[in-house]
Amino acid sequence: MSEMDVFFHPKSIAIIGASDSFKFGYATTKYLLDSKFTTFPVNIKKQEIHGHKAYKNIKDIPQEIDLAIILVGNEFVLQAVIDCVKKGVKGIVIESAGFAETGEEKYIKIQEEIERVSKESKIRIIGPNCIGVTDFNNQFTTADMSFDEAISGKVAVIAQSGVLGNIFIDWATDKGIGFSKTITIGNKVDVDEVDLLKYLNTDPETKVIALYLEGTKRGKELFETFKNMKKPVLILKNGKSEIGSKAVNSHTGSLAGNNKIYDAVIKQNSSIFRVNNFYEMFNIAHVFATQPLPIGKKIAIITGSGSLGALACDEIEEQRLSLASLSENTISLIKSVIPNWVSIKGTIDLGPSIFETFEPTIKAIFEDENVDCILYIFSVPRWPLQMMGSMATNWANHHFVLIKELVQKFNKPCVCVCFGSGWTFDFLRKAASSANSEVKIPIMSRIKHAIIAFKMMYEYQKRLY
Amino acid sequence: MSEMDVFFHPKSIAIIGASDSFKFGYATTKYLLDSKFTTFPVNIKKQEIHGHKAYKNIKDIPQEIDLAIILVGNEFVLQAVIDCVKKGVKGIVIESAGFAETGEEKYIKIQEEIERVSKESKIRIIGPNCIGVTDFNNQFTTADMSFDEAISGKVAVIAQSGVLGNIFIDWATDKGIGFSKTITIGNKVDVDEVDLLKYLNTDPETKVIALYLEGTKRGKELFETFKNMKKPVLILKNGKSEIGSKAVNSHTGSLAGNNKIYDAVIKQNSSIFRVNNFYEMFNIAHVFATQPLPIGKKIAIITGSGSLGALACDEIEEQRLSLASLSENTISLIKSVIPNWVSIKGTIDLGPSIFETFEPTIKAIFEDENVDCILYIFSVPRWPLQMMGSMATNWANHHFVLIKELVQKFNKPCVCVCFGSGWTFDFLRKAASSANSEVKIPIMSRIKHAIIAFKMMYEYQKRLY
Repeated sequence: MSEMDVFFHPKSIAIIGASDSFKFGYATTKYLLDSKFTTFPVNIKKQEIHGHKAYKNIKDIPQEIDLAIILVGNEFVLQAVIDCVKKGVKGIVIESAGFAETGEEKYIKIQEEIERVSKESKIRIIGPNCIGVTDFNNQFTTADMSFDEAISGKVAVIAQSGVLGNIFIDWATDKGIGFSKTITIGNKVDVDEVDLLKYLNTDPETKVIALYLEGTKRGKELFETFKNMKKPVLILKNGKSEIGSKAVNSHTGSLAGNNKIYDAVIKQNSSIFRVNNFYEMFNIAHVFATQPLPIGKKIAIITGSGSLGALACDEIEEQRLSLASLSENTISLIKSVIPNWVSIKGTIDLGPSIFETFEPTIKAIFEDENVDCILYIFSVPRWPLQMMGSMATNWANHHFVLIKELVQKFNKPCVCVCFGSGWTFDFLRKAASSANSEVKIPIMSRIKHAIIAFKMMYEYQKRLY
Repeated sequence: MSEMDVFFHPKSIAIIGASDSFKFGYATTKYLLDSKFTTFPVNIKKQEIHGHKAYKNIKDIPQEIDLAIILVGNEFVLQAVIDCVKKGVKGIVIESAGFAETGEEKYIKIQEEIERVSKESKIRIIGPNCIGVTDFNNQFTTADMSFDEAISGKVAVIAQSGVLGNIFIDWATDKGIGFSKTITIGNKVDVDEVDLLKYLNTDPETKVIALYLEGTKRGKELFETFKNMKKPVLILKNGKSEIGSKAVNSHTGSLAGNNKIYDAVIKQNSSIFRVNNFYEMFNIAHVFATQPLPIGKKIAIITGSGSLGALACDEIEEQRLSLASLSENTISLIKSVIPNWVSIKGTIDLGPSIFETFEPTIKAIFEDENVDCILYIFSVPRWPLQMMGSMATNWANHHFVLIKELVQKFNKPCVCVCFGSGWTFDFLRKAASSANSEVKIPIMSRIKHAIIAFKMMYEYQKRLY
C-alpha cells in the first residue's frame, strides 16, 4: 500500500464547501453524492445538498473519513485543513485557488501555514489551486469529469495545471485516447511530481506517463527519480520565455527553472522524452500505450494523398528516421494490384484507388523485413464516404480488423493519421474501435506526432535492450 | 472578363468519363447533374447516367459547351482533350492522374502532348492530376464537395494538391472557416499559380489567398506576381527535405526548387507570408479574412487557465510581439469585479470566475489604449457546460454579441482559442455564429496560430501604410 492510494481508492469522502449552485466543484459534488463512493457534503450554511444531509463541519460526520476535498474560499482553507487533521483524514485535495500564485504576502503566508500543518500531521495533501485526481478504472474523480464517454487506458497524467485534469481529457476522449489516472498538483504544498512518478512507475494500470511541469521545488529528487523510471515519461515544460516564466509564477507560484538544465537532464535518461505541446504529448502517449515498440527506424507510408505523403517524408527527415525501401518482392506484389498511375517510388500513394488496393498493399508492407513502422494516411472527403454509406463502413471495419491482426502478428507499430471533417474522424475511429480486439490503432490528425512517436519509441527500445 | 471565369461560372458543362458507380468523380457527377448547372454526361458505354442521357462523345452534345471535366483513364485523356478542341470548349479540368508524376516516359510524353494541344488551341486547362475548382458563392464544384455544410467567406485557396480542394475544406468547414474559391492545379500543363494569383488579386469575393505549392515552372513570373499582390498571400511549400522533394516529384512531377530562394523572395514582399502546415495556413487565413488589421503588436490575453495563458506568453515572445501592459485604470476596473484570487499580473486569468467576470473584463481590455489585439482562451470542461444547459448557451451567445460589437467599435482583432471536446468547440462556434452580424470571430484550437496571425497582420498593416 502506498500513501498515494487514498487519493484513488478512498473508502469515504467529505466535500468541504459542497454546493448545489452552479459554481466550481458543482459537477464533482453532484457526481460523488450520486455515486457508489460514500460521500458526505460539508457546508456551513445548508441543511441538505442534492438530497444528502449536509454537515456544518467535517468533525460532525459520524464516520471515519479517508479523503477530504476542499472547495471553500482561500481564507477558509487553513481552518478546514486543521479540522481535517482533527478528524484524522488520510488525504486532502485542496482545489481552492488564491495562494502563492497571487504573489501577495497574505496568501503566501496562508499557503506556508498549510504546508506546515501537512508536514507536522503527516496528512498527505494535493494542491491547493488544482482539480485533484481521476481514476479511470474505478471511476473516482474530484475533477468535474464525466465518465459517460471517458475511456480507460494505459496513459497516466501528472500535471501542474487543471486543464489537463478535464479539458484536455475531454479532447483526448474524442480522439479515442484512454487513461489510467490523472493528477493535477497545483501549488504542491505536499504531494508533487516526485511522489507521483514513483507511485505510477509501479502502477499496473499505467504504461506511459505524461508530465506537465511549470517548475519543481525538488530538482535533485526529480532528476534522481527520472533515472529510476522504467516506464516512458513524456515531459512538457512551460515558461520557456521570460514573460511565460512570469506568467507561470503567477499561475502556480512556481519558478520555471533553467530550461537548459532540464534539456541536459532529459537527454541523460533513457525513458524521459521532451514534448512541445499538449496535443503532441497526448498523441505520442497514445502510441506508446497501444503499439509495440519498433526494432528499427524505417517507416513505410501508405497514403491516399501524394502531398500528405511528401509532408510525412519531410517529417521523417526532420526526425532523422528513414523512409523504408521496400523489397523487390513487395514492390512487384503491390504493382500487381494497383492501377498503372499509382506511385510507389517513395511513399505508397494509392490515391482514390485506396478502396480496392488497400488490403493487399498493407499486408505486403507489414510482411516486408525492410519496414519497422507503418504510417497510414487516410484522406477521403466526407461527401463520397457518406454517399457510400454502409459500403464505406464495412470497408473500414474490415480493414481495421486486418491492421490489428498485422500489428499483433508482426509486432510492428502502426498509426493512422486522418484528415478532414470531424465526421470523417469519427467514422474512422468507430471502425477502429469496432474490431473486437485488445489492440488499439491510434488515429490522430497530425503526421508530425505520429513520426515523433515512432522516433521516441525506437529510442526507448534501443536504450532498453 | 478573365479567361479564368469559365472555370467558376460555366454556362454549360460536359463530364467526360461520367459514371454512376462509386469511383472517383461519382459525387461531382451526381451533384452537377442534379444541380442548376446545365450538365451533360459523356460515357462511351452507357445510354443514361443518373437519369440523364449520356453521350458517347462530347462532340455529340447538341449544344455549346463552356467547360469540360475529364475523368477518363490516363491513356484516353489526350483524345478527350482533342475532342474538346473540336467541340470548341473554353476550359477543361483534367482530373485523371497518371502523367508526369509517374516518372514514366510514356506518360510524361502524353502530358507534353496535352500541353502542346492546349498552347496551340488556346483552350485553358487545369490539371491533370487534380480535382479542379469550387466556387462557394454560386456553388459550382468539380471537387466532390458538398455544400450542405460549406461556408462561403473571403479565403481563396490555390493548391498543388487535391486534399486542399475537399478534405481540408471539410476540416475548415467544421471550424467555421468560409471560402470564396478553391482551385487545385495538379501537374499544371497550362493554368498555374501565376494565372490564379493575378485572377484572385482582383476577385471581389476574396480577401486573402492560401497558396500551397510543391514547385513552380515559372519562377520569374511567380516572383514578379508576388510583388504586385495587394491581398495577403499565405504560402506553404512542401518538399523541404531531400526525401520529401523526391516524393513531391512523384506526386505532381514538380521540382521542389530551392527552399532558400523562396524564403528570400518572400521576405522582400509585403503581402507574402510563409506558413508551416495546412492547419496553420487555414487558421491564419481565417483571421485575415474576418478581423481588422491591428495597428500595434501588444496582445492582451484573457484566459480561464493559467497554464494556457503562460503558453500564450511563450508564443508571444517567440514571435517577438509583446504582452500588453494594461493601464492603471483598466487594472482597477477589473480588480473591482474579480475575486481576490484572480491573477492579472500578466495575462488576465479569470479561472472558473469567467462566467461572472468576463463581460466587464473584456470591455475594459478593448477600451485600453495599450491593447492592440485580444486573445481569448476558452477552457471550460464539457460536463459542467452540459449541466448548465441553456444558462451556458445564453451566456455564450450574449458574450459573442458583445465581442463582435467591441471588435467593430474599437477596430481591434480578436481571436478565441477553445480547448476541450468537439462538443465544447461546437457549443462555442454556434454561439459565435448565432449573433446576427457581419463580423465573425475566429475560433480555433491552437494558440500558436492565433499569435502568428496577429503578427502577420501587424506586419502586413505596417507595410501597407
